[in-house]
Amino acid sequence: MEQNTKPVKIIPLGGLEQIGMNITAIEYEDSIIVIDCGLAFPEDEMLGIDLVIPDVTYLKENQDKVKGLVVTHGHEDHIGSIPYVEDVLNMPIYATKLTMGLIEHKLTEHGNLSNIRRKVVQHGQIINLGCFRIEFIRTNHSIVDAAALAIYTPAGIIVHTGDFKVDFTPVFGEAIDLPRFGELGKKGVLALMADSTNVERPGYTQSEKTVGKTFDNLFNDNKDRRIIIATFASNVDRVQQIINSAYKYGRKVVVEGRSMVNIIQTASELGYINIPENTLIDIERIKDYPDEQIVLITTGSQGENMAALSRIAANIHNRITIKPGDLVIFSSNPIPGNEKAVFKVINELEMKGAHVVFQDTHVSGHACQEEIKLMYALTKPKYAIPVHGEYRHLKRHAELAEEMGIPKENIKILTTGDVLEVGENTFEVTGKVPAQGILVDGLGVGDVGNIVLRDRQHLSQNGLLIVVVTLDAATNECIAGPDIVSRGFVYVRESETLMDDCREVVEEALDSCLRKNISDWGKIKNTIKDSLSEFLWKRTKRNPMILPIITEV
Amino acid sequence: MEQNTKPVKIIPLGGLEQIGMNITAIEYEDSIIVIDCGLAFPEDEMLGIDLVIPDVTYLKENQDKVKGLVVTHGHEDHIGSIPYVEDVLNMPIYATKLTMGLIEHKLTEHGNLSNIRRKVVQHGQIINLGCFRIEFIRTNHSIVDAAALAIYTPAGIIVHTGDFKVDFTPVFGEAIDLPRFGELGKKGVLALMADSTNVERPGYTQSEKTVGKTFDNLFNDNKDRRIIIATFASNVDRVQQIINSAYKYGRKVVVEGRSMVNIIQTASELGYINIPENTLIDIERIKDYPDEQIVLITTGSQGENMAALSRIAANIHNRITIKPGDLVIFSSNPIPGNEKAVFKVINELEMKGAHVVFQDTHVSGHACQEEIKLMYALTKPKYAIPVHGEYRHLKRHAELAEEMGIPKENIKILTTGDVLEVGENTFEVTGKVPAQGILVDGLGVGDVGNIVLRDRQHLSQNGLLIVVVTLDAATNECIAGPDIVSRGFVYVRESETLMDDCREVVEEALDSCLRKNISDWGKIKNTIKDSLSEFLWKRTKRNPMILPIITEV
Repeated sequence: MEQNTKPVKIIPLGGLEQIGMNITAIEYEDSIIVIDCGLAFPEDEMLGIDLVIPDVTYLKENQDKVKGLVVTHGHEDHIGSIPYVEDVLNMPIYATKLTMGLIEHKLTEHGNLSNIRRKVVQHGQIINLGCFRIEFIRTNHSIVDAAALAIYTPAGIIVHTGDFKVDFTPVFGEAIDLPRFGELGKKGVLALMADSTNVERPGYTQSEKTVGKTFDNLFNDNKDRRIIIATFASNVDRVQQIINSAYKYGRKVVVEGRSMVNIIQTASELGYINIPENTLIDIERIKDYPDEQIVLITTGSQGENMAALSRIAANIHNRITIKPGDLVIFSSNPIPGNEKAVFKVINELEMKGAHVVFQDTHVSGHACQEEIKLMYALTKPKYAIPVHGEYRHLKRHAELAEEMGIPKENIKILTTGDVLEVGENTFEVTGKVPAQGILVDGLGVGDVGNIVLRDRQHLSQNGLLIVVVTLDAATNECIAGPDIVSRGFVYVRESETLMDDCREVVEEALDSCLRKNISDWGKIKNTIKDSLSEFLWKRTKRNPMILPIITEV
Repeated sequence: MEQNTKPVKIIPLGGLEQIGMNITAIEYEDSIIVIDCGLAFPEDEMLGIDLVIPDVTYLKENQDKVKGLVVTHGHEDHIGSIPYVEDVLNMPIYATKLTMGLIEHKLTEHGNLSNIRRKVVQHGQIINLGCFRIEFIRTNHSIVDAAALAIYTPAGIIVHTGDFKVDFTPVFGEAIDLPRFGELGKKGVLALMADSTNVERPGYTQSEKTVGKTFDNLFNDNKDRRIIIATFASNVDRVQQIINSAYKYGRKVVVEGRSMVNIIQTASELGYINIPENTLIDIERIKDYPDEQIVLITTGSQGENMAALSRIAANIHNRITIKPGDLVIFSSNPIPGNEKAVFKVINELEMKGAHVVFQDTHVSGHACQEEIKLMYALTKPKYAIPVHGEYRHLKRHAELAEEMGIPKENIKILTTGDVLEVGENTFEVTGKVPAQGILVDGLGVGDVGNIVLRDRQHLSQNGLLIVVVTLDAATNECIAGPDIVSRGFVYVRESETLMDDCREVVEEALDSCLRKNISDWGKIKNTIKDSLSEFLWKRTKRNPMILPIITEV
């Protein structure tokens, strides 16, 4: 690294406040590469929104510089926005085999697969994009084929861990390439961008294989019951271990839930999952086997409303009905915010007689404190930039980096949109680019904003009252109505007198406008709205949306 | 107990599916007593609802039998509905001193205090209500003055634990009266109704005093910072321990948040909290002391939107601003469903430079497995009726009762509204009474039902489109409009062409009605609604509520 090179820019375009939407741009002179391109699920207050994708205005404005998209692994929060963003940017994509398989599935569904150049990269391989060289380094995570990235820039080496854990005994493939991180550390790493998800947890994350042992024990203890296991569709290793236990204990495996079927098919085609012959059977054939010879693997471990397990629990699944004695295993932890939904499903299952196990049947895919420290000990970075977490995680991570000997001034917690310049003697935020999440509702991308959301919020809490009045164009006198239509306010049949009183309030408001010679519709509407609103608050302590509609003849 | 006595009826009117709304009726011939009368907070799908109260139709129909309300402790889920239910039933109330103090505060706010007979009961005291005798037995819980009830009925003794834990070293008063439970066991207990909240947790719940030690350590380690502690307002012992640590380390105590101020005042007046002179200061005087001499006790430990701590974190509190270096302690665990809100507040506090501690700073107020077993070992009931939990808790409790030697057929998980008959040789559900929760929205009690909630749900997800058409009364031709008003659908200024297209669709629908000589308004409205709905789904994959409004001149 020469002393007089310029600093490299690191620009997170998501993934910090808006958890899930992981996307980062790395820029040096006329080269930009993009790391990951995920989606976020809507916050509670984003009523009716399906998903949130990143704002790539900055990349669009610099499209000639954008050399490609490098992807660390195949989770939704890292690949989910690719179809949308590729519609705008059309970048070539680089990823390992399974990750690319999942991306291609997405692009096919969205209909833009054929437009986009793609290249499968192997662990250990280095690709050239503009002035950057990018090395894919094997890591472990809750989806196979995960990679960390070493990005060789003119200003120095940036290591981005992606989502990682250290699993010395992985189910598929090899353990994380710790020696390579050590080699990079010896060469000199400029900056480390490491996963913060589990930084609040001391110690080490358990190996995925420990869950396999738990499954074996549960299968052994429940030989006379049907077994149903819910887990994350993308956790191919978890599914592999369920299949292993099923095979060992002579059970057939049935897979249910669209995403589960998709991923198992992709993983199986690409050689990432090994299913013994005659083990997988179609859900139609479930009735040909006794209960104790069946294990059902299903989606819905987060209590998602429309997922297979929730439909089974609510007794609205068309093929599976819970029988007393069924063993249901949640091989997952609830993601914060999903607890109530998960417990609702557990209650429903138990009411139908199932026995539910949901503790100690899952391990995380993210590094705990000691593993994160190990990453610092190996790479010995000059600068630390915590990524992948809420603010509290990033802050705890910054403290941990300081414990690992990084000087405080060499650690930076970024905000989405920050432009961080990093060089031998530079480490500062020098700018800000647009990076608000963009809301997707149905086919609409970005057409729902704060005003629409505020209206939905108002309507959801209080409902609405529509006041329809027909005025005489000449005299402004009311010749039809006022008619009042309400939705989501009160049950009208039981509130006839309230509606009568509302009509009276509106009539009085109209009269007062007439008396004062007010003929401006805007003013008339406001008068109606204000009087009615005041009346309703006094009478009901509620505040529905009031929409006066005036027609004229 | 004589062989020929009739069975006693146990009727839970809430508290099982609808967590929180604890209320149970005990009936024998012409006597009914009511145990507790709590409220529930609305489920996520109950949009705009403030709270849920029990349906007491059955009690109203049998009002001449109802002898009184006995209350186990002063938490909202056990006393919150009293003002509403007393409006209907006007029962005398029996409770221990602090519990009664909190009830009286509620009744005063609601305005019906003076109408209701009230009697303060001491632990160990027995009251007579109709054919029942009811003994209040001292227990420990996360609010002082909690009681279990031994209900002497002609059919035998029913023990209701209320919410309890075993605390051998309570902060205030004495430990749970375990010997009395043992005496009752020796006499012979017909049925035990015991708290199930923590039945999934092995071992024992820690003593409240352990939190005091934690506070002392934190105060000792942070002598140079301002300290802010959020906890449950009703946990008087917790507040006492904060005050103790503050006094020990020479800090003044400021209390913030309406419910916190109320409860500390009530507890202090009644002698349940001991505040050394010159320790409590008014929030106005906070600026007269250096930060390191202040501790602020506040509401908002569950991330509640409008609570003091949330307003402080969002920088919209009018008196307290977070300074870098402040220590904020969450002395609470998030109640399931509140995790995201709590973490949001933590993130906001840390972004402003506060150091937040939220682990190992709380103990539960409910018995874990070994304490529940102890209750069975002491009372040795013939029948077990798990209470106070979701279904999964009740079921785990039923399994635990079986482990404790209660025969399976003597354990029953009830559903709200079940009428359980219990006698020497009887243990069966023989009927069902109305027991749906009643929704309270503003001043309206019960006027928001499923239709209104469904509309709010629909509006919240998709918004609405109002189509206004004025027809000629004679010809049915459209003489004004169609005008389209939308709210919560799309940002209209950016969607002018969409609105134009909508108008065209409506015009076409009207034309087709004219051509077919359809003059029925209902049919015309349906035609408009169906065409527009189909058009919008194709174009946007969204499904707003569509309200056609026809006026005629």
